[in-house]
Amino acid sequence: MRAFFVLEYDGTNYAGWQRQKNGVSVQQIVEEALQTALSSPVKVTASGRTDAGVHALGQVAHLDYDGSIPPEKLCFALNALLPEDISVKQSGRAEDDFHARYSAKKKTYTYTFIESNVRRPLAERYAARVYGALDDAAMNRAAQLFVGEHDFRAFCSTGSSVKTTTRTIYNAGVERRGDQVVFTVRGNGFLYNMVRIMAGTLFAVGEGKKTEQEITAALLTGERKRAGKTLPAAGLTLKSVEYV
Amino acid sequence: MRAFFVLEYDGTNYAGWQRQKNGVSVQQIVEEALQTALSSPVKVTASGRTDAGVHALGQVAHLDYDGSIPPEKLCFALNALLPEDISVKQSGRAEDDFHARYSAKKKTYTYTFIESNVRRPLAERYAARVYGALDDAAMNRAAQLFVGEHDFRAFCSTGSSVKTTTRTIYNAGVERRGDQVVFTVRGNGFLYNMVRIMAGTLFAVGEGKKTEQEITAALLTGERKRAGKTLPAAGLTLKSVEYV
Repeated sequence: MRAFFVLEYDGTNYAGWQRQKNGVSVQQIVEEALQTALSSPVKVTASGRTDAGVHALGQVAHLDYDGSIPPEKLCFALNALLPEDISVKQSGRAEDDFHARYSAKKKTYTYTFIESNVRRPLAERYAARVYGALDDAAMNRAAQLFVGEHDFRAFCSTGSSVKTTTRTIYNAGVERRGDQVVFTVRGNGFLYNMVRIMAGTLFAVGEGKKTEQEITAALLTGERKRAGKTLPAAGLTLKSVEYV
Repeated sequence: MRAFFVLEYDGTNYAGWQRQKNGVSVQQIVEEALQTALSSPVKVTASGRTDAGVHALGQVAHLDYDGSIPPEKLCFALNALLPEDISVKQSGRAEDDFHARYSAKKKTYTYTFIESNVRRPLAERYAARVYGALDDAAMNRAAQLFVGEHDFRAFCSTGSSVKTTTRTIYNAGVERRGDQVVFTVRGNGFLYNMVRIMAGTLFAVGEGKKTEQEITAALLTGERKRAGKTLPAAGLTLKSVEYV
């Protein structure tokens, strides 16, 4: 029987979603909890890997299992076993052809900045600290350039092997919340480090160091050097995954 | 020479501000960093102790020291030595008769609730999770009963030895921010666990389990059992301390 679940996690202490040799991953912790709950080894497939230190408010995963626990009750069994920084917010029955990764239609990410010249322990766990004030209005205008179908080759780190670097962005925006500035982006898929490079590009715009013309040039030429730098993981959160 | 500084800290991993035998305190970490920076032992006095797990956005402390580092530069020397979860946001020269605790005129605390039936790793570090929806408007009305000079004997935990349990509250309010509800209170001083008991009382009001009449009765009779329970430390933050 196939089940899905929705996960929230604080990525600070994990080496990302995906299992790996060096460091503890969220996948490993979730699979170990499932193995305890179901008394047999289980493999969990997520909508995508999140990198080390990246957070999730609504990661989606699926698994196949046998046993007496109904899918909608799996979350209760799991939450009793998971650590404080990982939570299964919802679980349920999925169609046999549902696949957390391949069935995903849209994903939404946020990248949060905190403006401060001094360290901010109560904010920096979930935000990237920047010196001085960001021009959030200019960042919001520049973010609109990402909307639509584009070749985002300039906005991905090397090391990713994908068939195409073309992706569609449905919405993008930058909003101020006090001394925090939040970039939200929704698209049909994202390349390796794409949101963190988009955020780095908008950050340069917010500091007055990059113009809209340069973003357009990055999109047209596909040259990585024309986009901004890859910002730290702590500011990034996978907000939600949509399947319809 | 006397100096003051303003501290922000994430209290999650500390046994509170004050030095103690069991567990690491914020005071210990700050004094150790100062000893390294100044090459001599230093005692730091804060505006008040925060309990284990309580956060601070603007704790104030003072110290006396000799040496070549100017008071306004102390923060840079300290921040290079302090861990990620403690930051000195500002430092400066203080008058010789300035005392972080005895000169304090007003303190402001916030207590944050997150409404969720499931665990919320990205919110619960700084908020107390409650089931169901809180009636924030009723909580805000009830909070006004705290304003003024009252005997807050019913709103303190046993174990505190104070001359008087009368305190003055200047402002109190409850505000909704999405699925979070924030109680803010500003007064000339607070008894042991007073804000966490006030928050517990307002929580009962927000759940429809306590009326304004019962708060008035708690204030008039001084009976601890008429007030609400003491809520967890994670929701509490010392926001600021005023000296004028």
